[in-house]
Amino acid sequence: MAVHVLHYLHQGRAQWGVVADNAITPVPGEFRSTAEFIEVNPVERLLVLDGPRIPESEVQWLSPVTANQQFICQGANYRQHMIESGMDPDVKKFNMIFTKATSCIVPANSHVVKPNAVRFLDYEIELGLVLKRDITSRVTVTDENLHEYVAGAVIVNDYSARDIQIPQMQFYKGKSYRTFGPVGPYLCLLEKRDFPKLKELALTLTVNGTVRQNDTTAGLVYGPAETLTELSGVQDLHTGDLLATGTPSGCALSIPSPEKQRAAAQLPEAEKWRHFLKMQEDRPQYLQPGDVVEAQIVSYDRSINLGVQQNVIVEEAA
Amino acid sequence: MAVHVLHYLHQGRAQWGVVADNAITPVPGEFRSTAEFIEVNPVERLLVLDGPRIPESEVQWLSPVTANQQFICQGANYRQHMIESGMDPDVKKFNMIFTKATSCIVPANSHVVKPNAVRFLDYEIELGLVLKRDITSRVTVTDENLHEYVAGAVIVNDYSARDIQIPQMQFYKGKSYRTFGPVGPYLCLLEKRDFPKLKELALTLTVNGTVRQNDTTAGLVYGPAETLTELSGVQDLHTGDLLATGTPSGCALSIPSPEKQRAAAQLPEAEKWRHFLKMQEDRPQYLQPGDVVEAQIVSYDRSINLGVQQNVIVEEAA
Repeated sequence: MAVHVLHYLHQGRAQWGVVADNAITPVPGEFRSTAEFIEVNPVERLLVLDGPRIPESEVQWLSPVTANQQFICQGANYRQHMIESGMDPDVKKFNMIFTKATSCIVPANSHVVKPNAVRFLDYEIELGLVLKRDITSRVTVTDENLHEYVAGAVIVNDYSARDIQIPQMQFYKGKSYRTFGPVGPYLCLLEKRDFPKLKELALTLTVNGTVRQNDTTAGLVYGPAETLTELSGVQDLHTGDLLATGTPSGCALSIPSPEKQRAAAQLPEAEKWRHFLKMQEDRPQYLQPGDVVEAQIVSYDRSINLGVQQNVIVEEAA
Repeated sequence: MAVHVLHYLHQGRAQWGVVADNAITPVPGEFRSTAEFIEVNPVERLLVLDGPRIPESEVQWLSPVTANQQFICQGANYRQHMIESGMDPDVKKFNMIFTKATSCIVPANSHVVKPNAVRFLDYEIELGLVLKRDITSRVTVTDENLHEYVAGAVIVNDYSARDIQIPQMQFYKGKSYRTFGPVGPYLCLLEKRDFPKLKELALTLTVNGTVRQNDTTAGLVYGPAETLTELSGVQDLHTGDLLATGTPSGCALSIPSPEKQRAAAQLPEAEKWRHFLKMQEDRPQYLQPGDVVEAQIVSYDRSINLGVQQNVIVEEAA
């Protein structure tokens, strides 16, 4: 059975606990990182955790993924989002990988700061997977052994400054601004039998109450097993590291089709980017200070419920 | 005066020491990370370090930047390298930032493994800067206060799988394979008065004794001060973190000019990448198993001498 874990501040102390019915059973011990928590507390142990409970309303959420972990992301990993991002899903035949600076990680109910220099701030709801063990050499991960490598799941919102991310070619900077990575609230730790549900999670994102993204993880192009297999042949991964699996369609971003891009490719570079920015100006979906973004991920049977992220967009202090 | 620090294994123990005339004066204490070492050992203290010395030949080099630090890179930061990378330096008006996985960091004399799946392995000598303090909010770094933010310099070779890095759009994966980031041998810690020399360091890279890259840091487009100023407005940086400042021209990579790219832009995407790969096949400069790559960075007066990196390219074990 899935166990929902919260990392929180209570009476000035960072703690971890199991959440059910709006109450928290604190997990004994001090764990300074997601890795330390996961290594000591397998889901089987948390399932039988007992003790006095405290109301969830009395605590302050922290991110269940700590800033010492890696924050690795898949790009353009749902077909329809590829299309709105100007890619042909039948031609893009690689698993696009990039990172976000971990200093962008904030609790799930944080304000998100729109930097003064950023014009086009976008949202991206994503399923985040948290690793269960170190991977320091090439391994073959399959749906059958995925539970040995993945501890659980979280909501990630991969906030993105499109006017930085796209014209500057490498996604890192435009996706790494402080507060651009709310994670949580719950880290849902999974038992082996829960893993098939990772393929049928419903993702919903609203802005000011209007649904903008609404899809299921059935639409993932490169799944967790093949992604971890490939990454294991490239780099080391560690317990507690975060893999954000990409966002479905419905973002504010709009880029013309590859055909139209080819037609426009005769333009000088600077002209091309002026057109790109002009096109974004016509998209009222971009976030403005005061907007409220809510993100939820749940399984159909609601046994996996990663909670609700709510972020108010605020201006950067002058 | 600049002090040259080595991180090394001696009698099974990881240690740090000051190097001069091929001998090491060990620094007392245990420092598990670059941050811990730098925080406890300012250059002024190391300048007056005394004690018994051991021959450098008796130790095994370690990377002076440890894997817990951030590995942040600038792309296309010398004009001529931009041109060979298919960019117009008069049009690219942004500081391109990406990261490498820190598991690619290896000592300066490591073998570099060419993954079986990689066809086009390239070298990139770079000046690496190691940070002196945490930066957790926007700061203005100038040439005058740069010494407050940068502790010292190292050689970085940003090995790159061009057939992954370029067609897959985001540089991270193609530059993050294990062993793709030799760092060192020496971390040269600088006093304030040494900093002007960072603008006139000579970088030289040879393959099998033939010079391939040979330039000076005078050619950097975005210098350290403006880069740290911009990054400080995006993300947190920490003591001991590594900023690789980009490579000069002379890589194996060859991409047509923006004009020629525009002419070829009418091709379907897959066709375009076939042309790219075909073009690389004609470049004998790409690295093959058995090749020996040497990289050196020195100031004209040789008071800053970051040592010699030597990497033999080897095949991946089957």
